[in-house]
Amino acid sequence: MDPPKTRRVSVFSERAKPKPPAPYLRFEDISAAAFRIQGGIQKTPCTYSRISKQLGMEIYLKKEHLHYTGSVKERGVMYLLTSLTQEQQRKGVIVATDCNFSMAVAHHGVELKIPVFVITPSCCSSPRLRVYRDYGAMVISYGNTAQDSRSHARQLAKENGYLYLEEDESAAYLAGLGTVGMEIYEQVPKLDAVVVPAAGQYGLLAGTAAAIKHLNAEILVIGVEADGFPLLLQSLKTDSPVADMDSRPNNKLYGDLMENSLGVNTFRLAKTLVDKVVSVSEEDSLVAMLRFQEFERSTVDTEGAMGLAAILAGQLPDLKGKKVAVVVSSANMELELVRQCVDRALVLDKRVSKFSVQLGDSPGDMAKLLDLLSRENVRLLDVCHQRHSDKSELFKTKVECVVETRDKTQSAQLHKTLCERYPSLCWLDR
Amino acid sequence: MDPPKTRRVSVFSERAKPKPPAPYLRFEDISAAAFRIQGGIQKTPCTYSRISKQLGMEIYLKKEHLHYTGSVKERGVMYLLTSLTQEQQRKGVIVATDCNFSMAVAHHGVELKIPVFVITPSCCSSPRLRVYRDYGAMVISYGNTAQDSRSHARQLAKENGYLYLEEDESAAYLAGLGTVGMEIYEQVPKLDAVVVPAAGQYGLLAGTAAAIKHLNAEILVIGVEADGFPLLLQSLKTDSPVADMDSRPNNKLYGDLMENSLGVNTFRLAKTLVDKVVSVSEEDSLVAMLRFQEFERSTVDTEGAMGLAAILAGQLPDLKGKKVAVVVSSANMELELVRQCVDRALVLDKRVSKFSVQLGDSPGDMAKLLDLLSRENVRLLDVCHQRHSDKSELFKTKVECVVETRDKTQSAQLHKTLCERYPSLCWLDR
Repeated sequence: MDPPKTRRVSVFSERAKPKPPAPYLRFEDISAAAFRIQGGIQKTPCTYSRISKQLGMEIYLKKEHLHYTGSVKERGVMYLLTSLTQEQQRKGVIVATDCNFSMAVAHHGVELKIPVFVITPSCCSSPRLRVYRDYGAMVISYGNTAQDSRSHARQLAKENGYLYLEEDESAAYLAGLGTVGMEIYEQVPKLDAVVVPAAGQYGLLAGTAAAIKHLNAEILVIGVEADGFPLLLQSLKTDSPVADMDSRPNNKLYGDLMENSLGVNTFRLAKTLVDKVVSVSEEDSLVAMLRFQEFERSTVDTEGAMGLAAILAGQLPDLKGKKVAVVVSSANMELELVRQCVDRALVLDKRVSKFSVQLGDSPGDMAKLLDLLSRENVRLLDVCHQRHSDKSELFKTKVECVVETRDKTQSAQLHKTLCERYPSLCWLDR
Repeated sequence: MDPPKTRRVSVFSERAKPKPPAPYLRFEDISAAAFRIQGGIQKTPCTYSRISKQLGMEIYLKKEHLHYTGSVKERGVMYLLTSLTQEQQRKGVIVATDCNFSMAVAHHGVELKIPVFVITPSCCSSPRLRVYRDYGAMVISYGNTAQDSRSHARQLAKENGYLYLEEDESAAYLAGLGTVGMEIYEQVPKLDAVVVPAAGQYGLLAGTAAAIKHLNAEILVIGVEADGFPLLLQSLKTDSPVADMDSRPNNKLYGDLMENSLGVNTFRLAKTLVDKVVSVSEEDSLVAMLRFQEFERSTVDTEGAMGLAAILAGQLPDLKGKKVAVVVSSANMELELVRQCVDRALVLDKRVSKFSVQLGDSPGDMAKLLDLLSRENVRLLDVCHQRHSDKSELFKTKVECVVETRDKTQSAQLHKTLCERYPSLCWLDR
């Protein structure tokens, strides 16, 4: 309504003022990434889960583990790779850890006709090496530790002009990861909250939060991290990104997902945009992995299970009755480890129990025990009957049993019955 | 070009001729089904699989196991249910076996606000009962066998006006199932072949073939059935649908998937439209299930794995170099059974081996064996050292080991080395 002249002056005077620094990650960057990667990245389903009824909220699982390389990292990596100069694309890229990020680089690099070199320590399993080779990458085993292969990769990069890539907080990478937030918003109308695993460099959490909060600031964004390694919670407490954290979580379970420092920009984004951060234990994650197997017929890994783990462990009671999207970030765990995790989870879930009792050695003692188990309707998995010779007792045998129970109610009932009959009962919570 | 008059006469005379009977399942029926079910049925991904490189063909997996109830049956069931009269929808439907079909009826019935009753025999596991209840169905346990609950369901249906549903070859059901063929055609350009598991009532095979052959008659349609129960192969041989087959395949693995008769219309469709039918063994299916776990991070069931099993077992060598879509029909197997299947598959795949050897009882004999295993780089899973007392020998012990090997090459190498060192070696192929 001002006369044109005044307006013009105003424009000029604005130009003279120092502008606020451009935000690190704008929604425009994320939407540009979404446009750029759509040809190479599958739009994953975000579907209602049957587990909702148990948990009293409407849970939608954003199944990022269904990507070709099994993780959400593909989004960031593909955008990163398409943003390289033609010259760099021609020369090639090099990575040096066996992780979801490297798998995404191997696959999308090769798809974009960029030469990809993967340096792994000699302990890397042969099925994993085959994965990288199947994707079309050149694999070189070097050194005994991740540190060895990293420095070798850096050296090769320097000598040959390859670009050394590792997960970082570059704006392009975060923008690519943030596209998952856009997709969720589009796929689930009237969403109340999004739960995001905050592992690795926390880029997935920061990127998703940037997308969601731009689209609707009222949608809660919740980050979940491992309680053995609460980098973000610690950083929020001291109000500065933790530069070096020395506790290391279970390496076998979390792999290289855990970094020991948090980037400044990621921290700032998380601090501004994330509503809540909670931590989950290893046990919670294992039970969540079991639920994924049973309810979703999917073998996700520890990181992929973390979001659901927080809900299952009762860490997010405020979400009851709400519509919640949970990002399932990845599913790359080797078969043998998956089997071990499920075994442990069944014990944690009170569905496999181990105990020992002492029996006399008269004929029929063992039969009576087995009869009791049959009446309790539990399935016998293992049984070991051993003569028990120690200093204090004669004529005793020790029997160790592993049984399958339906749930914790049946397990408790069995414990009670056995306790009454056998005072020598020793309940072995493996 | 004929003068109108002649033409007109011709039209009349045509009308007088008896028309050929309308085909049982027209493409129009399938496309109508696709339109009708699109609101309630997820469009599942049909994605390139990494296993392609091993098999020398481009394999696209149509992941029908990602449906909410874990099977392709949802397509047929939803179309069937939407085709019921309003009156019948108000009264409700009843099913009586624990299978993918019943789960699909439970879920989609409830979604469409149709009352659903599920009658199960008392042996049905409690997690399964919970599934039906979670879907919102009314569950009644009745009788000891599937036969008992079926006749009870039929009686309840008669008394209360419910519609008794079981898998059949009605045109509506087949049309719904056929929509998977339309989707594959749309998702994978330039397809050479489609491999379809032919279990249950063979409706999936017949429906898919009808869709694919209408769209492009040059695309091969291949059916795969269990070799313990080759209903279609048998019917094709005698050129009439087998009315009653008495061999029963492994019930635990195939559940109620195997019917003992083939419908006339399904047989006619299959005979006309299917290019090839092959059969796979139980072992092939188990190894395919293992591959799904490792390559696709999915726990599919025996039926779901059958298509890939045929390719893995070398039954379809003509497909080398071709672009092949494989329908993964379902993934509903209870956790404990999945674990047993994977265990057995690892043995079949020569990645878990069991053997026994006799040792002397001098100190160090056991250490030497374990040292040999360590040098062969195999992982020890179980070991059992027992004094061996039989009539023929003194001073011997028997050691039984279960070890994990990388592949069949390593397993063979281990066998050779052990054989040279221990003439008493007994290789136990469980």
